[in-house]
Amino acid sequence: MVRASSPRSAEIRAAALDLFTRLGYEATTMADLGAAVGMRGPSLYKHVASKQDVLVEIMTGTMEALLAAHRSAVASTDDPVERLRRATEAHVRYHARHRQEAFVGNRELRSLVQPHRDRVLGLRAEYERCFRELIEAGAQAGHFTVGSASLASFAILDLGMGLAAWYREDGELTEDAVVWQYSQFALRIVGLR
Amino acid sequence: MVRASSPRSAEIRAAALDLFTRLGYEATTMADLGAAVGMRGPSLYKHVASKQDVLVEIMTGTMEALLAAHRSAVASTDDPVERLRRATEAHVRYHARHRQEAFVGNRELRSLVQPHRDRVLGLRAEYERCFRELIEAGAQAGHFTVGSASLASFAILDLGMGLAAWYREDGELTEDAVVWQYSQFALRIVGLR
Repeated sequence: MVRASSPRSAEIRAAALDLFTRLGYEATTMADLGAAVGMRGPSLYKHVASKQDVLVEIMTGTMEALLAAHRSAVASTDDPVERLRRATEAHVRYHARHRQEAFVGNRELRSLVQPHRDRVLGLRAEYERCFRELIEAGAQAGHFTVGSASLASFAILDLGMGLAAWYREDGELTEDAVVWQYSQFALRIVGLR
Repeated sequence: MVRASSPRSAEIRAAALDLFTRLGYEATTMADLGAAVGMRGPSLYKHVASKQDVLVEIMTGTMEALLAAHRSAVASTDDPVERLRRATEAHVRYHARHRQEAFVGNRELRSLVQPHRDRVLGLRAEYERCFRELIEAGAQAGHFTVGSASLASFAILDLGMGLAAWYREDGELTEDAVVWQYSQFALRIVGLR
């Protein structure tokens, strides 16, 4: 695994993320990665055993960051409506700020080998379940009306992925404006009364 | 360009779509494509000049099919609410049925060379504008309430991309069930009264 504590490792991870975004995982070589960070084979391999290791680090790191942001949002209130609003805000804001992670995380799932693929799929399932449970709690409390809480959770999660594809810091809308409107869309999707 | 009239060309296009989905455009070679359809170099090159040509065919074909489905949906009614509902149904149904096209269309935009990239971006902008104008028309007629018609159109379009990532024919929900619920989400996103 990449040693997360080393600044060199963070630099390698950032360079790998950029290469995976531009070329794709398959087409990226360890030589490309070495060239991007100005390191030759032996010293690069001291930091990272393989490009698969860097991919695993990127994909699990992304899901763990999303789960941590979610837990923090949900812990900030007991109100079911506010919980979904804040969880969506955290989700959308992460995707606005980590567009390469979102892109690679979506595109390269099939490039992960086992057991890493199952681990990342497990984290994704856990994250989806968190949203589904928020929606179910709000529906039980009489705030939301949904046909399928699963479908509604997918639709809300996809707001993040979609945003990562088009959002630019220098675009017409500020990050906050997008975050607030997308959270309103989430509450509308679940039929907030 | 691939000669669309030949059955061989359709087979080559399908094989390329599969390879681009699994390996990515960069990592796919003309030799892979030849092997997939059982053709050697010279006979393959009679049908397709380059892998870029096949990518262009796939990406423009996808956008033209979406635009045609949209026009047909919108032409079927004058009611602004029904227009958005049917346009979303067409959008979601296309993505449920053409998941590889959606995946490659999203992932490989950067692999297109000019002028093809601008042409596909132009078709995408046109498609987005169609949705935005439906939303604006519904808002002017007093049916919808949206902060930004652009953001609402992005959110609705992303329902399709998201669906393409998780939908399976043998899953829990039928295509119709997903299409109907997602269309309801679209009408909720625009604040249907």
